[in-house]
Amino acid sequence: MNSEPNTANALRLHLNENTAGCSPAVLEALHALSRTAAGFYPDYDEPREAAAQFLGVRSDHIQLTNGLDEGILAVTAAAFRDRTGGVPDALGVVPAFDVFEGCATALGGRMVTVPLGSDLTLNPDELRKAVTPQTRIVFVTNPHNPSGTTIPLERFRSLARDVRPAWLFVDETYTDFAGVTLVETSIFSEHPNLIVGRSFSKAFGLAGLRTGALVAHPATLEPIRPIVPVFSLNAWATAALPVALADRAYRDWYVAQAAASRSLLVGACARLGLDTWPSAANFQLVRVGERVEEIVAALAARGVIVRNRSREHGCEGCLRITAGLVEDTRRAIDALEEVLCGAR
Amino acid sequence: MNSEPNTANALRLHLNENTAGCSPAVLEALHALSRTAAGFYPDYDEPREAAAQFLGVRSDHIQLTNGLDEGILAVTAAAFRDRTGGVPDALGVVPAFDVFEGCATALGGRMVTVPLGSDLTLNPDELRKAVTPQTRIVFVTNPHNPSGTTIPLERFRSLARDVRPAWLFVDETYTDFAGVTLVETSIFSEHPNLIVGRSFSKAFGLAGLRTGALVAHPATLEPIRPIVPVFSLNAWATAALPVALADRAYRDWYVAQAAASRSLLVGACARLGLDTWPSAANFQLVRVGERVEEIVAALAARGVIVRNRSREHGCEGCLRITAGLVEDTRRAIDALEEVLCGAR
Repeated sequence: MNSEPNTANALRLHLNENTAGCSPAVLEALHALSRTAAGFYPDYDEPREAAAQFLGVRSDHIQLTNGLDEGILAVTAAAFRDRTGGVPDALGVVPAFDVFEGCATALGGRMVTVPLGSDLTLNPDELRKAVTPQTRIVFVTNPHNPSGTTIPLERFRSLARDVRPAWLFVDETYTDFAGVTLVETSIFSEHPNLIVGRSFSKAFGLAGLRTGALVAHPATLEPIRPIVPVFSLNAWATAALPVALADRAYRDWYVAQAAASRSLLVGACARLGLDTWPSAANFQLVRVGERVEEIVAALAARGVIVRNRSREHGCEGCLRITAGLVEDTRRAIDALEEVLCGAR
Repeated sequence: MNSEPNTANALRLHLNENTAGCSPAVLEALHALSRTAAGFYPDYDEPREAAAQFLGVRSDHIQLTNGLDEGILAVTAAAFRDRTGGVPDALGVVPAFDVFEGCATALGGRMVTVPLGSDLTLNPDELRKAVTPQTRIVFVTNPHNPSGTTIPLERFRSLARDVRPAWLFVDETYTDFAGVTLVETSIFSEHPNLIVGRSFSKAFGLAGLRTGALVAHPATLEPIRPIVPVFSLNAWATAALPVALADRAYRDWYVAQAAASRSLLVGACARLGLDTWPSAANFQLVRVGERVEEIVAALAARGVIVRNRSREHGCEGCLRITAGLVEDTRRAIDALEEVLCGAR
């Protein structure tokens, strides 16, 4: 657990959170919980069934996790379980979500990475070429983080086929914003080495409640399930999830806010002469140039926290801004213009 | 995540939960949380500091975990990280909490067990003799689960010294009820291979919120921390923990209830001619004999859920009953007498 910057009273646009929070219906359900809900271990039947229905798969294809981070840890540990072939490899791209490499190395494996081109768009052929007999799992994200770019789903299907017997883990944390998903029951029969990671943190505003899911063929989940503690999501998370998934209108409203915010950000960046990437997620990567560190600090001083991604391959001079509520985005754009143009 | 018996409207005395739930002050704090608490990733400074103060150690000796189960998983994974010596071993006793073996085997290691004698009391000498060069971690519990027995703390200190370089993990989940703990800053400098696991599920009634902690020397925690997801406890758990730990009166009241319940259970068992073990925890192991399965079912039919432990070494014919609220215990004893004596 790291210590995040002190963001009390500031606009948090650095972790791709839902700044509107959860749906009002979710909070109402949580406020109805009692002291014994705190005292008793939770039950998972209802939230698992709700997740299965939402994702359109049977519940035996679902492993709920305490945030998708726990899912990534469990998947990596299962992939690395057999060490008879020596130190196991995970394969991924850079830049990427840092938890992939964090888990791989913390568990005693090696992270092998393929650099993305300047379009920061996944190139499955480059990954394919990097697979070796040591490769146990391949990590990709769609839409990609931190660029927000996507590629056609068909290319993940063929990648799954080609990396076998390694697992292909597709992190779909931001997929609600893109409106596309690999998840459907038949794909897991066809590609038993495919594991899709889903998060309910972003579009549903449940980051603080830690709710995620692994979706895969039941036989694939078999060695993974025992690595997820029996009581993982807590009782507040299990109460929240079914209510959140049922409030589709709230999700749709927030997804529309994120889309409008992306347009505003892209327009503002064009006016300011800053490069962006075509994002389908709830964030926008922006190349502000050499002064990135200073700009991130100046935004923070104005109460707008963004993420400096400039130390990663391909992201030189870049910061990442969450694209959520339109009112937040307008405030972020005002601050960015003020910082870059010196206007006041 | 397993499916527990349907215990709606029944008295849950099978998981050593706090049937009174959390302190009223905790529920009040949770009801004050907002929609953005759900949307934002939690911060851990305050709950970690609260845990450190409660335990009397510096906060760099603490790793909070999403229930102690997550801590056991992380500790095992870290212990098994280096596989250059072949398949790693964990060492423990039987009977024991099943998560130790569950984690060891799920992560690709081997669980080696030493059977306890008929007193179901830890014998450190037997464990000491079973240590081999393959032993990476030794799991013990104080008070022991499922017997509730204890041994002098000094014997854990000498065991820690003797199992080196393996880690000694002492699970102190039930220690609030026993009033003894190994935790103090100096012990971890003296025994850097000692890791103490603590849970706030039981005496504080937070099982449903998932709050636990690993306590060890900072250098020992170093390889373990990256195996605990950055955002582990959720925002409701982080809000609950400091409030729960501050309400010492509630904890003390519940600990006294558990002590009174143990006395009632021991007395009732003596009247019924049933063997018990001297428990210092919030449960009582009871030997009901060959009819154990039938008796557990008959109790369930009367709305009292207890745990059948009879399939484990040394627990033949035994069930385990949570000793919590005195009113619950009286109801359990009434049901037990009814079942055993056929009275109505």
